[in-house]
Amino acid sequence: MAQFDGINVKKSEFSEWYTQALIKSEFFDYSSVSGCIVFRPDGYFIWESIQKFTDLAFKNDGIRNAYFPLLIPEKLFEKEKEHVEGFNPEVAWVMQVGNSKLDERLAIRPTSETIIYDSVSKWVKSWRDLPLRLNQWCSVIRWEFKHPTPLLRTREFLWNEGHTAFATREEANSERERILQIYSAVLKDYLALPGISGQKTESEKFAGAESSYSIEFIMPDGKMIQGPDFHNDGQNFAKAFDIKFFDKDGKNQYAYQNTFAITTRVIGAMLAIHGDDRGLVIPPKVSRIQIVIVPIYNNESKDEVLSYSTRICNEINKDLRVLLDDIDIYSPGNKFNRHELRGVPLRIEIGIKESRENTLTVARRDTMKKEKIENKDINDQLSRMLYQMHEDMYKKAKDVLNNAISIVNTYDELKKVILEAKIAQAAWCGSEKCEKKIKAETLAKSTNMPFDVQQGVEKKKCVYCGNAAKHVVNFAKSY
Amino acid sequence: MAQFDGINVKKSEFSEWYTQALIKSEFFDYSSVSGCIVFRPDGYFIWESIQKFTDLAFKNDGIRNAYFPLLIPEKLFEKEKEHVEGFNPEVAWVMQVGNSKLDERLAIRPTSETIIYDSVSKWVKSWRDLPLRLNQWCSVIRWEFKHPTPLLRTREFLWNEGHTAFATREEANSERERILQIYSAVLKDYLALPGISGQKTESEKFAGAESSYSIEFIMPDGKMIQGPDFHNDGQNFAKAFDIKFFDKDGKNQYAYQNTFAITTRVIGAMLAIHGDDRGLVIPPKVSRIQIVIVPIYNNESKDEVLSYSTRICNEINKDLRVLLDDIDIYSPGNKFNRHELRGVPLRIEIGIKESRENTLTVARRDTMKKEKIENKDINDQLSRMLYQMHEDMYKKAKDVLNNAISIVNTYDELKKVILEAKIAQAAWCGSEKCEKKIKAETLAKSTNMPFDVQQGVEKKKCVYCGNAAKHVVNFAKSY
Repeated sequence: MAQFDGINVKKSEFSEWYTQALIKSEFFDYSSVSGCIVFRPDGYFIWESIQKFTDLAFKNDGIRNAYFPLLIPEKLFEKEKEHVEGFNPEVAWVMQVGNSKLDERLAIRPTSETIIYDSVSKWVKSWRDLPLRLNQWCSVIRWEFKHPTPLLRTREFLWNEGHTAFATREEANSERERILQIYSAVLKDYLALPGISGQKTESEKFAGAESSYSIEFIMPDGKMIQGPDFHNDGQNFAKAFDIKFFDKDGKNQYAYQNTFAITTRVIGAMLAIHGDDRGLVIPPKVSRIQIVIVPIYNNESKDEVLSYSTRICNEINKDLRVLLDDIDIYSPGNKFNRHELRGVPLRIEIGIKESRENTLTVARRDTMKKEKIENKDINDQLSRMLYQMHEDMYKKAKDVLNNAISIVNTYDELKKVILEAKIAQAAWCGSEKCEKKIKAETLAKSTNMPFDVQQGVEKKKCVYCGNAAKHVVNFAKSY
Repeated sequence: MAQFDGINVKKSEFSEWYTQALIKSEFFDYSSVSGCIVFRPDGYFIWESIQKFTDLAFKNDGIRNAYFPLLIPEKLFEKEKEHVEGFNPEVAWVMQVGNSKLDERLAIRPTSETIIYDSVSKWVKSWRDLPLRLNQWCSVIRWEFKHPTPLLRTREFLWNEGHTAFATREEANSERERILQIYSAVLKDYLALPGISGQKTESEKFAGAESSYSIEFIMPDGKMIQGPDFHNDGQNFAKAFDIKFFDKDGKNQYAYQNTFAITTRVIGAMLAIHGDDRGLVIPPKVSRIQIVIVPIYNNESKDEVLSYSTRICNEINKDLRVLLDDIDIYSPGNKFNRHELRGVPLRIEIGIKESRENTLTVARRDTMKKEKIENKDINDQLSRMLYQMHEDMYKKAKDVLNNAISIVNTYDELKKVILEAKIAQAAWCGSEKCEKKIKAETLAKSTNMPFDVQQGVEKKKCVYCGNAAKHVVNFAKSY
């Protein structure tokens, strides 16, 4: 504890603001390992919340948790060709243990398809063994060489990885909507985070998948970032790993598989999107401290104010996470700054006036508005304010996202929108050539093809080549 | 799914029984990585339960979760001399990423003192920053070269690692009893597992600690195995990592630290201790399926029996985890065998007789006793049976443990007890020389010095040298 060290840039200088907000809030910290960060308790609390709610929804959907080894033998890792090509440059290899050199290199999992499907091929023999729907919560290493950014691009991150196998393509496909719905609900209901769900284009899909789907967010710098994703692997991995079963007719078939993940990156997007010049703004449901009580007194009023503050604190239900900040060495203003930087949703200010009137002054972190309320049904009142704050945060973020999308009909319009750091929504013929040219000329890539804007696409023309359009795509600069 | 493949040895052939029970039950599996296992859903459910209850108790005690990098730079890892010497032979090193050789080797954490204390030294400046009580749930790699045994000796295991820092030695010491109490309660209340709590001798303590404490179990082969542990690190790591703070008098001091852990090894001990010739016996609170309903019918009675079985299944509360095993291809006897192998606590048998009488026949997995009960208040009746099963399992295991301990007064007695594969409880002078000689001559090592048998030790003589005794020690062969 030392002098208060606030953020010394505005949020408009986004990249500097972002790292200052994450580090100075004491939610995260750099570590001695380049590109890897430390999750401090308030930051990790957000991940624990995401895990808890996602895991519950997975279990209700019939998915079961398991745990597979961290290390993957090189020969397994190489079994699916596209997969290994996609991940190889970023794989960390264990080659020595103590003073002994290993006979075979071991990869630290960048993702676990290969080690999991090696087991699944032993377990699946009959249609009665399907569907097999497994998930694990773990960390993965992808040693990117681009400039690292805490949570958004780190060499180690935390995630869930769902890996499922089905008897038919239809069953496998029907899982997609349910899983994307679970992710969307967690993002909306807990992180107050709106996103755009859609399919990735062929060139942006996952290494080894048949088709990929994502939820994308818009960051304050106008770049998009990919959140949770879902991949239909078809029979690609089943063929590489020999995952075969006897179907009801006694025929030996390959299984159909899916993979899906939510990662700690969504925390970065959430902090970036909700924060302001003062620091973080944490959605109430994932904030370790939801309400902070700051007593304001002088020598004369001290006893009375502290006694009233303590009474209020004790009246607040245990399911609201409250902190009475009665440390004597900081001024109330200093405390306000600290808790604002850390994004505590509600601040209750209690002075001699509140004590005499039997009231509370409550400040909401997102709007910074203060309201005086009576000390009556305070649990109901505070719960309602927390609820309203969540709703308002979601609505605000949703408006920002909606306003960032421009429907463009010509390539000139597309270029203009990209220069304005926005999302250009355009019809596209489906050829990789057009997609690549757009990327080369504007630096904007196809983020995804939103599910809800595809209707009537057959009447449109490709924004680049003018041929008949097949998809509507969001083009934007991205992380 | 195939022919039922039961355990083909008795539990008395312990080592073969143990691996068959873990693998054939489909709780665990071998993997393609030598010495690393797969946690399948029923096995992982036990770990999730341990995590849930331990984590709740930690949080109630004020401990907060965090997450630190998996990889530790070599220069950090080497900072505490005893620590690095203890772990170096088992460390897996990352030396290459993609095709690039790293400038500095990175250790996969065998334990995280070094990476965590590097951060703690930045965070702790004043007595107001203390105590700092952190925990993380993660996996660690210790590449042992001894013969691996699933859960008991694996190269990767899952654990909690608590790392705390205090302003005074007294505060640091006072944490010990609370943490060991939390671990004992989780073992007793959820795993029905009794253990012996005590201090480790100087030569058996943790690499880098001032003193170590453990909870030890007795395995069916008479060998002891160490469960959860707690280490007072004193100022050892604080000095190596420069964890200093200004105390209330403005003096700059080193912090006092502790470390504590429970690992997936306790699952192995639990399965080994409770199992029988038929397979696993899972304590009800950590069993993914607590009750299985097996309908027994012929063509004529099928509809009636299935309809009654379904009604019973639906009457059982959702907080009891029940499965109606109505798959048609296996005989009831085959199903009995499968669920017994997998240790499902209660089996409800329903035939035409039960249906007509409005009764249930319930078999308890631990005693294999059947009881016919009326279909009345079945949730109360089943809950009571599950509760009683847990109590009885704990009592049985506690009796086995108590009967295995022999108090010995002479070295001849000690040797005899060790030959009988039991625990020899003996007075000891405290010299490493005697301890080493006993180990060399009997292959029994000091497991720990139980807290509850130390009174009056000063009147006793060392079992080996006859000098004045300082401690009462449990000697046993061990894992």
